[in-house]
Amino acid sequence: MSNKLKGACLFAQSGGPTSVINASAYGVIKTALEAPEITKVYGAAHGITGTLHDTLYDLGEEDPAELKLLMNTPSSALGSCRYKIKEEKDLARILEIFKKYDIRYFFYNGGNDSMDTCLKVEGFLQKNNYDCRVIGVPKTIDNDLLGTDHCPGYGSAAKYIATSVAEVNRDAVVYDTGIIVIVEIMGRHSGWLTGASALAGFAGSPPDLIYMPEIPFDTEAFLKKAERIYKEKNSCLVAVSEGIRDSDGCFISEAKASATDGFGHEQLGGLAARLSNTVKQATGAKVRGIELSLLQRCGAHLASQTDIDEAFLAGKSAVEYALSGESGKMVAFERAAGAAGYKCEIMMLPLDVCANKEKKVPREWINEAGDYVEQAFIDYALPLVRGENTRTVENGLPRFANLKKIRAAAPSFPTGD
Amino acid sequence: MSNKLKGACLFAQSGGPTSVINASAYGVIKTALEAPEITKVYGAAHGITGTLHDTLYDLGEEDPAELKLLMNTPSSALGSCRYKIKEEKDLARILEIFKKYDIRYFFYNGGNDSMDTCLKVEGFLQKNNYDCRVIGVPKTIDNDLLGTDHCPGYGSAAKYIATSVAEVNRDAVVYDTGIIVIVEIMGRHSGWLTGASALAGFAGSPPDLIYMPEIPFDTEAFLKKAERIYKEKNSCLVAVSEGIRDSDGCFISEAKASATDGFGHEQLGGLAARLSNTVKQATGAKVRGIELSLLQRCGAHLASQTDIDEAFLAGKSAVEYALSGESGKMVAFERAAGAAGYKCEIMMLPLDVCANKEKKVPREWINEAGDYVEQAFIDYALPLVRGENTRTVENGLPRFANLKKIRAAAPSFPTGD
Repeated sequence: MSNKLKGACLFAQSGGPTSVINASAYGVIKTALEAPEITKVYGAAHGITGTLHDTLYDLGEEDPAELKLLMNTPSSALGSCRYKIKEEKDLARILEIFKKYDIRYFFYNGGNDSMDTCLKVEGFLQKNNYDCRVIGVPKTIDNDLLGTDHCPGYGSAAKYIATSVAEVNRDAVVYDTGIIVIVEIMGRHSGWLTGASALAGFAGSPPDLIYMPEIPFDTEAFLKKAERIYKEKNSCLVAVSEGIRDSDGCFISEAKASATDGFGHEQLGGLAARLSNTVKQATGAKVRGIELSLLQRCGAHLASQTDIDEAFLAGKSAVEYALSGESGKMVAFERAAGAAGYKCEIMMLPLDVCANKEKKVPREWINEAGDYVEQAFIDYALPLVRGENTRTVENGLPRFANLKKIRAAAPSFPTGD
Repeated sequence: MSNKLKGACLFAQSGGPTSVINASAYGVIKTALEAPEITKVYGAAHGITGTLHDTLYDLGEEDPAELKLLMNTPSSALGSCRYKIKEEKDLARILEIFKKYDIRYFFYNGGNDSMDTCLKVEGFLQKNNYDCRVIGVPKTIDNDLLGTDHCPGYGSAAKYIATSVAEVNRDAVVYDTGIIVIVEIMGRHSGWLTGASALAGFAGSPPDLIYMPEIPFDTEAFLKKAERIYKEKNSCLVAVSEGIRDSDGCFISEAKASATDGFGHEQLGGLAARLSNTVKQATGAKVRGIELSLLQRCGAHLASQTDIDEAFLAGKSAVEYALSGESGKMVAFERAAGAAGYKCEIMMLPLDVCANKEKKVPREWINEAGDYVEQAFIDYALPLVRGENTRTVENGLPRFANLKKIRAAAPSFPTGD
């Protein structure tokens, strides 16, 4: 059997966007447009739902210069979704659409839920003897995908968080009246992002305490420690993950009653305000709660160039591996151990290794008291935030990509498969 | 009488810090250190309170390379205060300290309250025949100082706000499920900062509605308009000033019961959360409230180079004008009318023009409905955000100035005056 497979390619973006997800998009789109085997490059509106609704864009119609601006355009340019596919019905519809457009390459850019979608699509197409190569392209600021050293999107969010914490820490100490600052950082079940706040130490302004979801949160112990630090140095900056829970597994944010997203995840938020109130009552100190909210995942102006380059490479590699015959895999990163300096290489990971699973921060990368990271965490995270991006700026403001998003016409085949 | 006055100089920073206040500090310190008439350059810890407590730093002891890093170091490097001087007692103490260190030049970097402090110090020294030149150096992200075209600090905060709103707006529309986003922006009594969110239009992602304190806030009209926009385009981004009030003058944030700062200003906050709740209840839409909080005033990584240059120039000019004999003035900016492109020149403004006064956004720069800015506002604000800064970055993180802050020893004079 030859590895050559001629046909169209479909690309889609899923889950929460990142600062660099569109760099992966550019990696896929550019490489696919240049590949002789690929007849058409389609993008689905709003992830897999765009396939279900038959809303595909013909990306060959886009201006190449605009496509290139995707390298520094935050958020999912094609739109995203949080949709868990209904197995038989949705998969049959996906096959129908794939046949309609002769889609032989499918690239899905997302996190662990999206890799599950990939896995199901791939299995269904195989079962129905439809020849199509399915590759997952990783992205998530949460950095919780199993089997890869790290995920595109993480480095930029980490850089945003570390820089912002350093700046806020400088601001917080200007008055001699003292202050406790609580910075709430994203991360439902893992502390990768919150731990990155420690990198603010490289700017001379590290946080004093770091609380991650991996360790049950003990409010009394926290209050005692924060007050001691506050009394010692007249300020205390606390970096805290939105997902911290008490020893019974209850979210400290107590937001369990609120709405859930399409995957059944609870929508958290408001922890900074809640915790600030607790601290104010317990210590009498001036307290300020700051929630980094969406800013940390869309702050493309502060994206790490290492992250941008790797996001592009992930997209490019996905297409190259698919062309060479790979399918049912996710692009992953492997860090060269013991290399002088940072070096990561691409490897291909079976989708079921990462689908629906979550990678936590190793216990030994968190200190014994559970309120700071160890040097091993810092050594891991630091290379990922390096590199200043060279985005296009006009009038002092970012110039984002503006895609025409021309709806794909139904092709004049079907060709046989 | 010659203009030559030999003696020491004292510099201090007051009020809320900005991303570029230390660029003004560098302008003052560098120019003063190079001036033959100036015998010593002191910095007061925490503004005027450092003078009262006799905690002065000898800035001649600092490493010149570290001082230069002040150009891109956010927040007040010497510390700040919000202290309203008690007239007779504090002024007598200030004179005592000035005599002790032979201070003949006093530069105070702050907003309208600080200019009032300047005015009082200057009047008291004159009344007591103590020869000392007093110059105010403007700073405030609020941009509400009267008599100057704009204030150093504003352009950088405006750039941060416009960029963040553009990024958040891109992020908010990725899902097809629809969303209303409320972005809370600083500004107690004027809408200069909130209006700057309109510049996000240059990045292709303007806000839909802008509410400023100059216009009484009508909750019903707002809900109606937000819902209409949301229904039309499946999203609505609202930029809202923390200081908006209803037609009775009550803050919408309803934070009136909370603590006040040293000047008697109410501490606002929490408006985004409150308003989000109102909108959610009224529309049933998914709503997200984002408070830019301290981030907008300390985000030096995104400082406008125009703002940095002007902040430095303000500090430098303050020293130069003082050396030439000026006193009782504030450095101000005058924009050249009708010039091709943006051009501002330094002028000296009597302190009583700006002390304790507030400049609002002109009514004609706000649309009739009171929910957006007019082109005149955009033309005014845009040049101030232009220019990308070239800060020093190490390990992907900002390299801020680290001052030694060596306490000034009591000099071995007094010399006669």
